[in-house]
Amino acid sequence: MRTIKLLIEYDGTHLSGWQRQKNGPSVQQHLEEAVAHMTGTPVPVIGASRTDAGVHARGQVAHFRTESAIPTYGFRRGINGMVPSAIAVIGCEEAPTGFHARFDSRGKHYRYTLLTRRPRSPLWNNRAWHRPRPLDFDAMTRAAQFCVGEMDFAAFRASGCQAATSVRTINAIEIARPDSQIAHIDVRGNAFLRNMVRILAGTLVAVGEGQICAADIPAVVASRDRSRAGQTAPAHGLTLMQVFYDHPAESSPTSQTFEGSS
Amino acid sequence: MRTIKLLIEYDGTHLSGWQRQKNGPSVQQHLEEAVAHMTGTPVPVIGASRTDAGVHARGQVAHFRTESAIPTYGFRRGINGMVPSAIAVIGCEEAPTGFHARFDSRGKHYRYTLLTRRPRSPLWNNRAWHRPRPLDFDAMTRAAQFCVGEMDFAAFRASGCQAATSVRTINAIEIARPDSQIAHIDVRGNAFLRNMVRILAGTLVAVGEGQICAADIPAVVASRDRSRAGQTAPAHGLTLMQVFYDHPAESSPTSQTFEGSS
Repeated sequence: MRTIKLLIEYDGTHLSGWQRQKNGPSVQQHLEEAVAHMTGTPVPVIGASRTDAGVHARGQVAHFRTESAIPTYGFRRGINGMVPSAIAVIGCEEAPTGFHARFDSRGKHYRYTLLTRRPRSPLWNNRAWHRPRPLDFDAMTRAAQFCVGEMDFAAFRASGCQAATSVRTINAIEIARPDSQIAHIDVRGNAFLRNMVRILAGTLVAVGEGQICAADIPAVVASRDRSRAGQTAPAHGLTLMQVFYDHPAESSPTSQTFEGSS
Repeated sequence: MRTIKLLIEYDGTHLSGWQRQKNGPSVQQHLEEAVAHMTGTPVPVIGASRTDAGVHARGQVAHFRTESAIPTYGFRRGINGMVPSAIAVIGCEEAPTGFHARFDSRGKHYRYTLLTRRPRSPLWNNRAWHRPRPLDFDAMTRAAQFCVGEMDFAAFRASGCQAATSVRTINAIEIARPDSQIAHIDVRGNAFLRNMVRILAGTLVAVGEGQICAADIPAVVASRDRSRAGQTAPAHGLTLMQVFYDHPAESSPTSQTFEGSS
């Protein structure tokens, strides 16, 4: 039995998220249908992150198990020939037999993108959350540092979240401004609760707009009260950038070891 | 009579270009309908560049004349409320009465974007021309320098081009690689023949892929023969970045002098 590991990019705008569901085309469904078509055997394609509808990915990782002898470049090209243009397999490699994209993940990097100028932007329409009023980036950066570390993120968890514990570790939150109109909130952590990055982004924006004081963030975290954090920032500003694994050869899913990723 | 100058951004993917036409929605038509709705008087909205279907703009400039007393911010907000999300007025200002967006333009900056990795990219789908094989950027840069200056660009002109003369001045061509997957060809010039930037981009890519030798570019230019240049690169890789004017206050259409542009 072989385990095939995929590196996947998608524009989530017109997709109903990663996970298979009744009401709309998911990334998982498109991939599973393509793999089943190629191998003749339906198997689950398991993703590292169950991204919501509208969320994008530059480096989603998934795996499936197969008896097929199709080479990795054959899977990459074959799947890309069958899935819609909003989805692409950008890397494909053989993984150790027991590899599991979700359970073996050691961390993830998400990017939340803000459009910070007054007029809206057609070229960022489905890629950034438009905040037309000036943001206090210094306050946002101070607030972000209170969310770094191992702590109970119950205040940053969607109501439907099924996780047994809400303790998570955020390794870093960086706020970058590549130009005067765009801001990136880059969040790296070991694992995330449901909507956690979007609630973090919404809370940091509330700080930037003066609705929450940066100095109050430790109390918001300590309260474990979802109603004290900011709103859930919209899905279309979020991109899954990278998934991290322990295996040396797989430490960077965008490294040259991934067939087709260069 | 007032002259209103607009700075416009658009995602050209689902638009039929700048100019009004029968077969599909153009940027000009959307703007003219919005202005007519606001002022009660249909007037032409004249753009600096008649971009093709699929071409994007970050800094198209246009003007219209009106007797209306609506303030510039009213035009910006009003038009943005009526045009589709693929179009946005990002700046609006009062211009000198005789101002003409096309005739007064002293130059333009176009960017042609290439996706240079092997797999296609959903997130660059309608924004970059996918060239999956390695490109020789040194050769492309050498070739580009042979196209800078005042010369007869008849070899880089679409067959239907109506211009009286094919002599134009290109001030600069810069090839930049913001990351390992993307290349930008930035072209600045006083004026451009029909499809000139796209034929230039297609020719530089042909050099990068070894089909045309960089040292042969002066002979290609001198031949004035369209068949000796490269293919017309597809429209979706092209973005009109900026239009230049002499008026001091208008030297940069993205400067703070433009209401709403900051």
